[in-house]
Amino acid sequence: VNVTILGAGSWGRTVALLLIKRGHRVTLWGRANAALAAAPYDQTHDLNAALQCDVLAIALPVQQIHSVLVAATFPKSAPYVLSLAKGIEQERLLRVSQICTRDIPGFSSGRFAALSGPTLADEVARGLPATAVVASESDETAKLIQHEFSGPALRLYTSRDLTGVELAGALKNVIALAAGICAGLKLGQNVLGALVTRGLTEMTRLGEALGGQSATFSGLAGLGDLVTTCTSSMSRNRTVGERIAGGEGLDDILQSLGEVAEGVWTATAALEIAKQHSLEMPITAEVCRVLYESKDPTAAIHDLMTRSLKSETDAYVSSTLSRG
Amino acid sequence: VNVTILGAGSWGRTVALLLIKRGHRVTLWGRANAALAAAPYDQTHDLNAALQCDVLAIALPVQQIHSVLVAATFPKSAPYVLSLAKGIEQERLLRVSQICTRDIPGFSSGRFAALSGPTLADEVARGLPATAVVASESDETAKLIQHEFSGPALRLYTSRDLTGVELAGALKNVIALAAGICAGLKLGQNVLGALVTRGLTEMTRLGEALGGQSATFSGLAGLGDLVTTCTSSMSRNRTVGERIAGGEGLDDILQSLGEVAEGVWTATAALEIAKQHSLEMPITAEVCRVLYESKDPTAAIHDLMTRSLKSETDAYVSSTLSRG
Repeated sequence: VNVTILGAGSWGRTVALLLIKRGHRVTLWGRANAALAAAPYDQTHDLNAALQCDVLAIALPVQQIHSVLVAATFPKSAPYVLSLAKGIEQERLLRVSQICTRDIPGFSSGRFAALSGPTLADEVARGLPATAVVASESDETAKLIQHEFSGPALRLYTSRDLTGVELAGALKNVIALAAGICAGLKLGQNVLGALVTRGLTEMTRLGEALGGQSATFSGLAGLGDLVTTCTSSMSRNRTVGERIAGGEGLDDILQSLGEVAEGVWTATAALEIAKQHSLEMPITAEVCRVLYESKDPTAAIHDLMTRSLKSETDAYVSSTLSRG
Repeated sequence: VNVTILGAGSWGRTVALLLIKRGHRVTLWGRANAALAAAPYDQTHDLNAALQCDVLAIALPVQQIHSVLVAATFPKSAPYVLSLAKGIEQERLLRVSQICTRDIPGFSSGRFAALSGPTLADEVARGLPATAVVASESDETAKLIQHEFSGPALRLYTSRDLTGVELAGALKNVIALAAGICAGLKLGQNVLGALVTRGLTEMTRLGEALGGQSATFSGLAGLGDLVTTCTSSMSRNRTVGERIAGGEGLDDILQSLGEVAEGVWTATAALEIAKQHSLEMPITAEVCRVLYESKDPTAAIHDLMTRSLKSETDAYVSSTLSRG
């Protein structure tokens, strides 16, 4: 099949190479990039020409998708759209599937799928084994993507829980920011274990409120991706947290990062959605305070351990917390 | 209160120091150990005298508990018993609570509690924050232990799910062996995320079959401890897996390890229990093959990825796996 990938970041380029190995024809649309010069895929800067494809894979920063889509003229028979992005649009509080439905004229959500899971680009590019979930409201669409995109090094499973898979991929980046802060403060692995546990609870709570399934959050696209992102030095979101804890300013970090750390934008969006649903997201709230209100990272983690661990009692029958 | 700790390993010694800081009187019973010479707690080699206490904390290797208990003469008014050990007795397939009920004459299970969670001894000893669960069939017993053992650096939550908490602590050591094998083979963090996800599913399945609650496995004593143990170089079980992957023999590793890696013994016990309940535990089964049947670690992980990831489909609605 003909696949166009919007976005020339590390994940977009990695997927492009995988697809070429699978025998597909791949066109990459993105900013000029020296790293692409010798690449084996077609490159174009003509957005409308790029849309003449069977599958349009979106590997753009989530905050940029809207402006790209509204600048495009889609062909009458729109392609399947596959999201490779993990985040929530800050302005309209939309998942990628919702952005597409609103911004592509006449687009049917049944032609949309999201690919999400523990897939650090660097490892996938090196041929290390990885797994992920392809979610769509349409079984046929999910199976089509699964069939065309999976290979021996990237095993794909289908899911109907599009909402859960998209939210899991977005929200884990926020928890990874907190994991990075803990790593930067050298708090150790005991705290990491507690953070991942409470983080998954917090992600699942919001996901279920928005119609996602808890099994999705316990699966590869939830827990799996969360563990990978919170433990890898290759994770940009974790790196941002680590550098914040080291005393650097957010703007300086983002400018030197090279690629986008989606959690920085998704954190405020998630908190806003949680407020609309009267849900508490203590980790996300502390991450926002550190990022946008200059709260001291040590104080944030202290408040988080105290606060978040009080709510751990919810998870146990007849639990109580002594001596605060 | 007067606390006796059976076992002078790193966790027993760490808990002893915490209790002394809390103002308790602590007696440590264990093998002679040069590291203990200057320690601020009483030491004894007289087992029966050591049992004259309010709380008996068991920090022995699980496979040794039976022989110590049956050699002891308990006072008429038996102390509370707190398990600090994480494993399953290989011979009788018993959890620590079951060992105590069988081996201490007239012992009431209501006086038993288990402390489990992400508590790497080295980090707790350094005063880094940690959290854990105290589980007992009796609320009063759990609250007593919580009250006497918790402090600012070790926050304790109570649970009634003794079965779940004991099994979670035991089974995560087996998954940590597999995580160590993956680390030794340099398979990366994408595989780790998948392994933790499938590992928790496998642990939960056995735990629920034996009467534990799935919420326990999603909590600190389950997921929390699993993440910590699978990611820390201080974990003995993870270290054993890493060294096995590096080509060392199990006997050599165990002899040079200094302390016990409980997962090595718990793996076969868990597999035996799973068989009795007709449950599949693919990760545990592959760990046993590597440890006891000299299976090549690379082949084991390959079979595991293929096999375990086929079963990931269980977790998703209407999932299918294409091209194996």
